[in-house]
Amino acid sequence: MQSSIELQLTPSAQYLLRIGDTCLILAQRLGEWCGHAPILEEDIAMSNIALDLIGQARALLTRAGEIEGRQHDEDQLAFLRNERDYFNLTMVELPRGDFAFSVLRNTMVSTWLKLLWERLANSTDPEVNAIAGKALKEARYHQQHSGDWVVRLGDGTDESRNRMKAALEQLGRYVAEMFDTDAVDEQAHEAGMGPLWSELKAPWQAEMQQILDEAGLAMPAESAFRSEGKRGMHSEHMGFILTDMQYLQRSFPGGVW
Amino acid sequence: MQSSIELQLTPSAQYLLRIGDTCLILAQRLGEWCGHAPILEEDIAMSNIALDLIGQARALLTRAGEIEGRQHDEDQLAFLRNERDYFNLTMVELPRGDFAFSVLRNTMVSTWLKLLWERLANSTDPEVNAIAGKALKEARYHQQHSGDWVVRLGDGTDESRNRMKAALEQLGRYVAEMFDTDAVDEQAHEAGMGPLWSELKAPWQAEMQQILDEAGLAMPAESAFRSEGKRGMHSEHMGFILTDMQYLQRSFPGGVW
Repeated sequence: MQSSIELQLTPSAQYLLRIGDTCLILAQRLGEWCGHAPILEEDIAMSNIALDLIGQARALLTRAGEIEGRQHDEDQLAFLRNERDYFNLTMVELPRGDFAFSVLRNTMVSTWLKLLWERLANSTDPEVNAIAGKALKEARYHQQHSGDWVVRLGDGTDESRNRMKAALEQLGRYVAEMFDTDAVDEQAHEAGMGPLWSELKAPWQAEMQQILDEAGLAMPAESAFRSEGKRGMHSEHMGFILTDMQYLQRSFPGGVW
Repeated sequence: MQSSIELQLTPSAQYLLRIGDTCLILAQRLGEWCGHAPILEEDIAMSNIALDLIGQARALLTRAGEIEGRQHDEDQLAFLRNERDYFNLTMVELPRGDFAFSVLRNTMVSTWLKLLWERLANSTDPEVNAIAGKALKEARYHQQHSGDWVVRLGDGTDESRNRMKAALEQLGRYVAEMFDTDAVDEQAHEAGMGPLWSELKAPWQAEMQQILDEAGLAMPAESAFRSEGKRGMHSEHMGFILTDMQYLQRSFPGGVW
């Protein structure tokens, strides 16, 4: 007996979960800033970005559940999967880190999501289409807001620049996963769901380069290491996120407000 | 619908859970030292003390479940209760802290448990009687081992003495709960289960005084603050312990090796 749901995913459903889970887990991490950000304005900004991401995750998980066709709703998908059935980018499960780390991660992920939403607005799936239209505006704002902080800190004091450099080095290792293409990606793409992730690489690098140039920072070299969260192989941090995130639904299955 | 068990406790069952939960939660905290203690010998010692405490918790939870008479076994009691149904001393749920904090807490708790086991060896409950006989030997060793560290650190360098003083100040606030007597305590005592906790105060203070004298440290003043973990009112740390501790049984109810 187990309380977890079992998935039978089509490539299109998994393709959406990869994006939705990335939003969900990043939102969980950003929520950790609530009450702890360096200034009040940013405390609220982090929480608001988290709420936008949760909205996007809700929509994508709901749609993935419909495509799967086994009556799994957003709450079951968010809270009752086992670790290997989450498909987020590994980058978003890394610990919160300092403020420099968090704004750089937000910049990397929101730039990536923005490019993705632009292309998902042409998805042959009308639901995904509609989700993308709304999410694109949010991602643009997230990119702008976080990117401004990367510039301010990179072009700031010795301390802030050193922290930004350290963040670039840490996060650089997890960038490759964003553009890795595999069979799931290819089949979902052929079905008209959305772009191959490899298509996002050149425009992502161009936009990040512009932000980093302005910040006086160098793009990290591509790493030989390949993280695989999107295939369900997570870092050691993922289990701890899930214990926190799933606690209420595991203790009170089906509980609602 | 909820996956948690519901308790209908007699005073005697709750009396035993207070002790058993104190062993269980302290063991969970001590487990956090595994792989992190300052020297290998102490890494093993901490883990061994944790294992002894888990053994004591298992025995007491099993007996409490039998007395409750609703077929709740040790695993259900350990992993499927809601926060308010745990009755440990608040002291043991405080974060691990540094090594000074951990050895001082172990000294305080093992001294208290030793005095308790000595008296529980005269319990009219034959099971509790048998548990106490074995546990007493373990508690004596825990007290000796941890007390030696309190002396070594208190009578050590400026750094180690300052850390021990800080630990005394932090833990001092939670001492009163060890000797607080309430209706549960009184009824269990009248039923012959074990001593009133207030009886332990004078001998505990005497034994702690001896250790602290040798360490060149002063006993912390009694605090006006009263923690109430033993009545189910926990610190903010408890929920996080439970999310970690309960994760597997919540995800795979009834799961066994």
